[in-house]
Amino acid sequence: MLTDQQILRIPGPTPIPPSVQRAMTQPMIGHRGQSTSDMISDIRPRLKRVFGTKQEVIILTGSGTAGLETAVVNTVAPGEEVLVLVTGAFGDRFAKICKAYDIQTHVFEVEWGQAVDPEAVKNFLSEHPEIKVVFSTFCETSTGVLNPIKEMAAAIKEVSDALVIVDGVSCVAGTETEMDKWGIDVVVTGSQKAFMLPAGLSFIAASERAWKKIEANPQPRFYLDLKKHRDNILKDTTPFTPALSILFGLQQVLELLEEEGLENVYARHRLMKDMTRAAFNALGIPLLTSDKDASPTVTAVKPDDFDAEEFRKVMKKEFALEVAGGQQHLAKKIFRIGHMGYCSPADMLQTIAAMEIGLMKVGKEIELGQGIAAAQRVFLTEGAKAK
Amino acid sequence: MLTDQQILRIPGPTPIPPSVQRAMTQPMIGHRGQSTSDMISDIRPRLKRVFGTKQEVIILTGSGTAGLETAVVNTVAPGEEVLVLVTGAFGDRFAKICKAYDIQTHVFEVEWGQAVDPEAVKNFLSEHPEIKVVFSTFCETSTGVLNPIKEMAAAIKEVSDALVIVDGVSCVAGTETEMDKWGIDVVVTGSQKAFMLPAGLSFIAASERAWKKIEANPQPRFYLDLKKHRDNILKDTTPFTPALSILFGLQQVLELLEEEGLENVYARHRLMKDMTRAAFNALGIPLLTSDKDASPTVTAVKPDDFDAEEFRKVMKKEFALEVAGGQQHLAKKIFRIGHMGYCSPADMLQTIAAMEIGLMKVGKEIELGQGIAAAQRVFLTEGAKAK
Repeated sequence: MLTDQQILRIPGPTPIPPSVQRAMTQPMIGHRGQSTSDMISDIRPRLKRVFGTKQEVIILTGSGTAGLETAVVNTVAPGEEVLVLVTGAFGDRFAKICKAYDIQTHVFEVEWGQAVDPEAVKNFLSEHPEIKVVFSTFCETSTGVLNPIKEMAAAIKEVSDALVIVDGVSCVAGTETEMDKWGIDVVVTGSQKAFMLPAGLSFIAASERAWKKIEANPQPRFYLDLKKHRDNILKDTTPFTPALSILFGLQQVLELLEEEGLENVYARHRLMKDMTRAAFNALGIPLLTSDKDASPTVTAVKPDDFDAEEFRKVMKKEFALEVAGGQQHLAKKIFRIGHMGYCSPADMLQTIAAMEIGLMKVGKEIELGQGIAAAQRVFLTEGAKAK
Repeated sequence: MLTDQQILRIPGPTPIPPSVQRAMTQPMIGHRGQSTSDMISDIRPRLKRVFGTKQEVIILTGSGTAGLETAVVNTVAPGEEVLVLVTGAFGDRFAKICKAYDIQTHVFEVEWGQAVDPEAVKNFLSEHPEIKVVFSTFCETSTGVLNPIKEMAAAIKEVSDALVIVDGVSCVAGTETEMDKWGIDVVVTGSQKAFMLPAGLSFIAASERAWKKIEANPQPRFYLDLKKHRDNILKDTTPFTPALSILFGLQQVLELLEEEGLENVYARHRLMKDMTRAAFNALGIPLLTSDKDASPTVTAVKPDDFDAEEFRKVMKKEFALEVAGGQQHLAKKIFRIGHMGYCSPADMLQTIAAMEIGLMKVGKEIELGQGIAAAQRVFLTEGAKAK
């Protein structure tokens, strides 16, 4: 087999574009110097557009979990009650962080593979007026669900003043995110998913009313203190040493996103999702989520007559193509295909065509070419819109 | 469309493996120092195995044409007559070089798309005992023909003492090359094809009897003088400044070829050829060459009911997938798919699946998925052998 080839179709980290890879090899510069400030100054407005906000987007050196913890320690005051909407492993992460801080945490569980129902959340909050903050997940990476956060935020506001905090790690920059318009109070994301970068940066934006609460919040914190970060970014600097290489890369990522156009980036992700889903539908292999709940960045497949783990092994052995397995109780029951960031419809054609062979190899009887033909038809009808 | 993606399926330059790209970014070192000599010493025996020879393989800084000219000026003495076997644009290149040196050049033309017939060459040489050197092409890049050089060398030896010179630019390292066993006197190749490197190096090996002639040859030459190169490489050095970065890359390429195993590398190329041909056969689109004459590194397709140039444009526009056009009288009549070097069966699945869409876009009526299914079937039957 061809050595040195790896086809990375896991839901993060994702492949890095060559120009971003090159940007990240720039020599180190002083992070307190003018060049770094110029770079941060250039990045600030561009990052805001990706989040759909006029607020500052804080750049934290840390991975996604650091970003989630930042959201918790800055928005929840000691003694407050919070609600965590858990639709999978990453919703669960929020609950764990809250519990680590002894925060009184209500957990609203949704069956894995389904999206949260805004009406149900609204009803829950009506009965719990003491809840001050709601934590939710935009794309639940562990199931491939895209939660309807726009509708959820609107529903919450009907009955509650709770802050709405969204973990957007595995979809921001890959799907439309309109933080201000939708009334989201905090959006957190990481660098290693649709942002096409290595892990190491987390991006966090907060609404005006969230900032009021953050400013007044006595919860102890230092490295993750958003006030320090905002004071600094307003002066085009960072409170602590930033992961400079990834900042170089981020600048180039923003260049690429703008060159393609954010609308086109989102359309490309939807197209890749639709191609993937059409292929598995045509092959008669069940998907974990409904069309309505499906994320444009990751698709979970739930085979009923072959072994998901065996299939993953075959794909790696035959094609060096890597997909993710299931997490927690879905371990070994599903496999997950990442189609976000530096990934094209042509890459999905490759993934699907190779997977048809993998299916044959694990004994699944399919008609070769049938999945790919369905994906091709989606490209031909929908692709014209996704330029 | 996803920016910064380019799917390069032309018959050279070919994509460069990441580890080779990294190797080439090593800092410059003195080319007269011990480190460079150590590197050359390491490369020498490994390069010989790729050529199938015990002779030194000369590393010339220059592109393929410099290598071809080196073959001409070192093996042909002033006043001698030579034969050039022309099966396409690159056979023609040999004839042009010979003519530039006022060498009396017999040209044996073969219809483009067909391989040279060893018996016909033998008969020609029987009638021209004055011919001292025969120039031929191993893979004719312009048509995708792999000439039967083993059989041709054997046939020539039956009737002539002429040296047999082979241009192996677009196939050595992608197809079995047994210079010594097959009695080939000079093999030339370049770095930017199956060697997975940027253009800039040319590799040349000569047989014992070729070296005797080279040593005695009064033809003026300096940079391209193989004697100088051999004197130097025997001391692990080069007569002139080498393209050091590409040498760094070459060392890593040899690592990759050995890791995969040369036999497996060749099997992978045959598999990619067979997958490509099966796909176009299934789609009812004519190929330029017969199965027997087809090269494992490049496939030429000759559409009879759609425009090859239009198709190439669509592939580039829709998928950033680049294939080559035809050359000289085949311009606009064929397109050529490179499948050599850093290219896997999964990459060919991608190419074929994307091309089916491209065919629809140029108005060719095909059944979607039919080409890919044929390629998949080839993978399933033949691929097990190509590990």
